[in-house]
Amino acid sequence: MVGSSDDSDVIEQHAEEEMEKSRAASSPSLLGGSSRREGHSSTQSSHRLLAYSDALISIIATVMILPVAHTKVENSEELRQSLQLLLSAKIAVYLMTFLIVTVAWAAHIRLFQVIVRIDDCLALLNLACMMLITFLPYTFSLMAMFPQNILGMLLFCGCVMVIGIIQCVIVLYAFSRPFLLDEQIQISENQNFYRSHILKVIMRVPIMCFFAIIFSFIFFQLSYVLLAIVVFLPYISQTLKWCYGKAFGQVEESPDEVLFYTYLPSEPLSKERVEAFSDGVYAIVATLLILDICEDNVPDPAVVQQRFGGSLVAALQAYGPEYLAYFGSFATVGLLWFVHHSLFLHVTKATRLMGLLNAFSLAFVGGLPLAYQLTHEFPRNSRNELEAIQISCVIIFFAGIFQLALWVVALYNQRESLHPDVWYGGREHVFMLAKLALYPCVALGTFFLTCVLAEFSASIFHLMEITVPFAFLLLRLLVRIGLALLRLLFCPDRPDLRSMVEEDESRVSFNSVVT
Amino acid sequence: MVGSSDDSDVIEQHAEEEMEKSRAASSPSLLGGSSRREGHSSTQSSHRLLAYSDALISIIATVMILPVAHTKVENSEELRQSLQLLLSAKIAVYLMTFLIVTVAWAAHIRLFQVIVRIDDCLALLNLACMMLITFLPYTFSLMAMFPQNILGMLLFCGCVMVIGIIQCVIVLYAFSRPFLLDEQIQISENQNFYRSHILKVIMRVPIMCFFAIIFSFIFFQLSYVLLAIVVFLPYISQTLKWCYGKAFGQVEESPDEVLFYTYLPSEPLSKERVEAFSDGVYAIVATLLILDICEDNVPDPAVVQQRFGGSLVAALQAYGPEYLAYFGSFATVGLLWFVHHSLFLHVTKATRLMGLLNAFSLAFVGGLPLAYQLTHEFPRNSRNELEAIQISCVIIFFAGIFQLALWVVALYNQRESLHPDVWYGGREHVFMLAKLALYPCVALGTFFLTCVLAEFSASIFHLMEITVPFAFLLLRLLVRIGLALLRLLFCPDRPDLRSMVEEDESRVSFNSVVT
Repeated sequence: MVGSSDDSDVIEQHAEEEMEKSRAASSPSLLGGSSRREGHSSTQSSHRLLAYSDALISIIATVMILPVAHTKVENSEELRQSLQLLLSAKIAVYLMTFLIVTVAWAAHIRLFQVIVRIDDCLALLNLACMMLITFLPYTFSLMAMFPQNILGMLLFCGCVMVIGIIQCVIVLYAFSRPFLLDEQIQISENQNFYRSHILKVIMRVPIMCFFAIIFSFIFFQLSYVLLAIVVFLPYISQTLKWCYGKAFGQVEESPDEVLFYTYLPSEPLSKERVEAFSDGVYAIVATLLILDICEDNVPDPAVVQQRFGGSLVAALQAYGPEYLAYFGSFATVGLLWFVHHSLFLHVTKATRLMGLLNAFSLAFVGGLPLAYQLTHEFPRNSRNELEAIQISCVIIFFAGIFQLALWVVALYNQRESLHPDVWYGGREHVFMLAKLALYPCVALGTFFLTCVLAEFSASIFHLMEITVPFAFLLLRLLVRIGLALLRLLFCPDRPDLRSMVEEDESRVSFNSVVT
Repeated sequence: MVGSSDDSDVIEQHAEEEMEKSRAASSPSLLGGSSRREGHSSTQSSHRLLAYSDALISIIATVMILPVAHTKVENSEELRQSLQLLLSAKIAVYLMTFLIVTVAWAAHIRLFQVIVRIDDCLALLNLACMMLITFLPYTFSLMAMFPQNILGMLLFCGCVMVIGIIQCVIVLYAFSRPFLLDEQIQISENQNFYRSHILKVIMRVPIMCFFAIIFSFIFFQLSYVLLAIVVFLPYISQTLKWCYGKAFGQVEESPDEVLFYTYLPSEPLSKERVEAFSDGVYAIVATLLILDICEDNVPDPAVVQQRFGGSLVAALQAYGPEYLAYFGSFATVGLLWFVHHSLFLHVTKATRLMGLLNAFSLAFVGGLPLAYQLTHEFPRNSRNELEAIQISCVIIFFAGIFQLALWVVALYNQRESLHPDVWYGGREHVFMLAKLALYPCVALGTFFLTCVLAEFSASIFHLMEITVPFAFLLLRLLVRIGLALLRLLFCPDRPDLRSMVEEDESRVSFNSVVT
């Protein structure tokens, strides 16, 4: 039975990964013995430091949605107008923060893929780095509020330069104590080459910031352009290289250097850390909702006494839609996490490009608290309410579609990136597609419903959100029925169809059915 | 060289743990093969589900400090009076939430120590559970605002009962698919005994809540007492058992049942999850600070134009102390995490009691945003400012002292709970003591300084906070000098003291020096 052993394959593969990790962790005892006698502080596995950094960075990336969500939208104005105000500054701050923080996080991953063990000194240096990274959102707020003033830009560039210097210190420190490094570099002959290569890559961003500072005194619009280049540098350089290659013939690169500290979209990122970062974003988004509930929806005792005659139940009934909105939003965030979890269970290698798509998906997930605020803020059956629901649908749609795009990108290189189960033609392929397509479809369907049905309300929307989990439970059944119908349509001459579907549907692949 | 191989021991021990984990994860492929053919959805390693749950629970436990911290303390009143108002309701909500959520989390750990693999259905059930757990803080807010009204109590008990029912469903589901269970239970003969035992333990809390609901209609004060009992049930029952044992002779228990799903303080908790939970709390506390900065300290362009003549630098100078407060607080949170990280690097087994002490420490860490709000809220050199600093010192002191207590408790059973390095007499023993004692000592010293020096200000306090990291870097040196001095005092007749200290200080243990 080929099909039935696939589950154990997933688990075994995890086990193998962990074995490898533990092998990597235990190796320094062979190599680092001599250096440790020199009286350095004790070396440690870097696992927890990285988990903590992931948590910090994911929270800081997401939490900047709060100033957006807490902006009071006046009921009297049209939603569209006030949204334009919002869009102009705060959403830009949120998205820029998210992107810049994600770039900083990707750099952090690559740095600690080289430095695999830490000691007390590195831990403290890393904390200093984190302190400055968490300060970046504030500089963005300043930039958004005072776009004509160069102070925000100066502060931002100053922070980035200091972060760059700290990272250089980390690299120099780690290379002076080689037992902290990755085994491959530890045994390599030309450590100096590696060191200078890494330092060169790290210093690129601070140097661009230095130029941005200089330009900001002369012609400050140009410094914003430079900043945008910093974010998209890897992708711009890659596109240019690709165009160059197409125009003047392929440029050959040595294969062992290609995947080491480059900006290539196929450079591997630690899958574990991508998961940890995503978990952090999903967790903080889910809990921001209850925070708003706790701060805003506990009535004042005096008000309850005056307006509701002391009846707390009556007072809370006024908040009814908000509870529904909370449960609906939590279900949505939880299920988007669930889809992400199912997807990454079958991802064997995460690349930079997949990381970027994941970041886009997460940026939209981070927008959900805004959607929550909007949908319960407006009176029932107003035009604003419908528009708020449409915005929610757009946010959910893009969050889902980028997850789907991530999978599609992984499918292009499925032998390396994916578990055989979800390959094109694999056993779980159709089911995974259904899981990933569910939210974009639901969001799209709801969007069109709001255009057609005037009575569509936020309460109905949130009720729909709550019922989606049951769709997930039914999904496996639906996929099976769908496959059976397809089979019925395309091969109606098969003899005992029912029993065959029952028995080995799981082994028959999608393309063998439709072709 | 016994001493020099200790570092590698730490790493090897981690490696062994991970090996064991992976062995546990890979085992189902042998046992679960037959059940999987029945067409269940695919089984998965539960690692990421648990990490996500830890993140959610730690954030929800901590985030409830925000309503406390955001309570506006009037400058005209005395701090002490307004604090009494705060203390009466919001801090109580925060602490109760933290404790209840921690209890729920401990139950979650124990449940998923039995169920080691998940499938889609369990993942969705767990998300439903999480949704209700994140709703608990709101019921506490209601209870705090309307202590005379039973509605908050009813909501809380209702949530807890639903959570209990979902957990029972999870247990029943998992026992109907034994390949999801822990290997030890999988191969055991009396699975039914285990199932009924676990169900009994889980149902205890919902049943107490049921009684609390009934009592709330008759005499509602009693239901609060019942709730308090729920939180402290394990410790109360344990104390009673201990007293009973002392009074009437030892009650024998079968050793294999003792550490399985009990309320014993020595029952092991998953160390990995205790770390993940702590990381979540430290990360959210560190980032709440920058959130406040971003929301409150971006000046309005109109104000800048009017009051500061368009000079943004002048406007930001007014916020100077707040930036200092931010960096100081971040350094404190980061270093408390660092101490926690150093400690758990040497912990080999976490017990319930250690988990409780950890939760107390984290509850105080969660109070740091309050301390931050207080210290920068009052004008310089007012009496309120000094009191705010004292409150900060108290919070930091307790956060540190509970960490120290955790280590002391672990030392009582050091052979099982700790790595030999930090045993009494071990190589890193004194250094670990110094690390753990640093924050309580600094906090205590600062507290007395505020009593003596009238000029002590919040700025000085935050500057002190920022300098503490350097104390950590110097600590190893200081411990070495301290040991040398002790040696000089107690054994002044040793011949070549200097060289000996230099050479093998690391191997000479503390107690052999002082005795």
